[in-house]
Amino acid sequence: CAQLLICVKLTPLLLLYNRIKASSLKLRFCTNETQATREKFVKKLQGLGFDISVDEVTAPAPAACRVLKERNLRPHLLVHNDVVPEFAEIDKANPNCVVIGDAADNFSYANLNEAFRILIGLENPVLISLGRGRYYKETDGLKLDVGAYMKALEYACDIQAEVVGKPAKMFFESALAELGVQPQQAIMIGDDIVNDVGGAQQCGMRALQVRTGKYRFLFSASFPPMVKCHPGLLGRRSSSAVAFSEQCREGRARQKGRLV
Amino acid sequence: CAQLLICVKLTPLLLLYNRIKASSLKLRFCTNETQATREKFVKKLQGLGFDISVDEVTAPAPAACRVLKERNLRPHLLVHNDVVPEFAEIDKANPNCVVIGDAADNFSYANLNEAFRILIGLENPVLISLGRGRYYKETDGLKLDVGAYMKALEYACDIQAEVVGKPAKMFFESALAELGVQPQQAIMIGDDIVNDVGGAQQCGMRALQVRTGKYRFLFSASFPPMVKCHPGLLGRRSSSAVAFSEQCREGRARQKGRLV
Repeated sequence: CAQLLICVKLTPLLLLYNRIKASSLKLRFCTNETQATREKFVKKLQGLGFDISVDEVTAPAPAACRVLKERNLRPHLLVHNDVVPEFAEIDKANPNCVVIGDAADNFSYANLNEAFRILIGLENPVLISLGRGRYYKETDGLKLDVGAYMKALEYACDIQAEVVGKPAKMFFESALAELGVQPQQAIMIGDDIVNDVGGAQQCGMRALQVRTGKYRFLFSASFPPMVKCHPGLLGRRSSSAVAFSEQCREGRARQKGRLV
Repeated sequence: CAQLLICVKLTPLLLLYNRIKASSLKLRFCTNETQATREKFVKKLQGLGFDISVDEVTAPAPAACRVLKERNLRPHLLVHNDVVPEFAEIDKANPNCVVIGDAADNFSYANLNEAFRILIGLENPVLISLGRGRYYKETDGLKLDVGAYMKALEYACDIQAEVVGKPAKMFFESALAELGVQPQQAIMIGDDIVNDVGGAQQCGMRALQVRTGKYRFLFSASFPPMVKCHPGLLGRRSSSAVAFSEQCREGRARQKGRLV
């Protein structure tokens, strides 16, 4: 059976990525990127040296579009301008739901009030969120992620959002199905303890957390054992990660341990 | 013993207000107004015909200042510009907590990120909220209240805010203490099912909900029995409200019933 490795925003891990591509392991990018279309996301990664195509990416916006079509929902979009093209074929007139993504500067007081008024005016308010991340790191510092604003609207309207990005089980199951492997055959690699590691574990997958980006020791202490790996060391010892993945495939890997 | 009637944003209820003032009942304004100092708030009400002074108002910002001083906390303020003067005597250098109020247009993406970064950078993040209201109505429509943004920061930092406005028990207890009456001697009159009615009931008071502003039938159905009153009818039949208050004082009022 095949071993699936799912990578997320692994720019420091190009060496590992190339080794996985060169191995017999299957690979899929699972991203909660909602500030750009998949096309833009892939171009950015290609520019960083990743040999990747749009078909290898699982992302929240296309997942949301599938849900909208299935349920005849017409969204009001509170998303980043650059991800709007993903919703080009969706009817957005006379909205009967709100889709929220990481809207960044579009998270203005006026825009949040507008989304709220649409929701509170619906008989059955439906809020679809492209993720539930708490925050993320950019070059100019930490920023609130979509999950924080999702919570604000949930509280104001006394509703529960439907999350279509990580860590939703449906999202990981889509990625696994797209590659035709079972959860126990797959490893998730990511930096986010809730969205990457927690989501994958709840889906029955093993997870490898890199110690970069959002990594915080205290946050990860409350999660089940996982493999933690400093990205620098992982870069230099990427053969270990591939070996670990192959051990998982053969059922030999420890549930608890360190690669570094 | 004296009967206390607490009123909140009762501009449609001036007639009732005047009747209470003319009676032997004690009266106190409990407001979650955090878009202005008490001075401005009182001036606004005086302009509407209310015979009221600053000493008759219980408000969140002064309550927050007491907490800040007691615990040597230096706040970063995410509040409305017009309420900043209430914090004039508070040391705000090198902040070790965040105070959030209904900041309105100050609820920008940049300002929320700044408050978040201060909180997440603290060893023990302290978030003090001047209320937990979900939304409120203005002439140009419904708007998200401080509670929604409080939830966003709570979620992002994985913390619980300390609420000093309604419906915090401490807030109602302060108002009762300021007038020297017991909860069972008091009635709360307000339009907000959670902040006015729920908060007062949890404090052992009876509550009268006016059917204006934020009143929603469905929301109120999940709360214990209370007296509901259309403000227009209450205005025309304000003698009924005063009579009801006097019945409460004498222990004759029904727990359940309608005034109108």
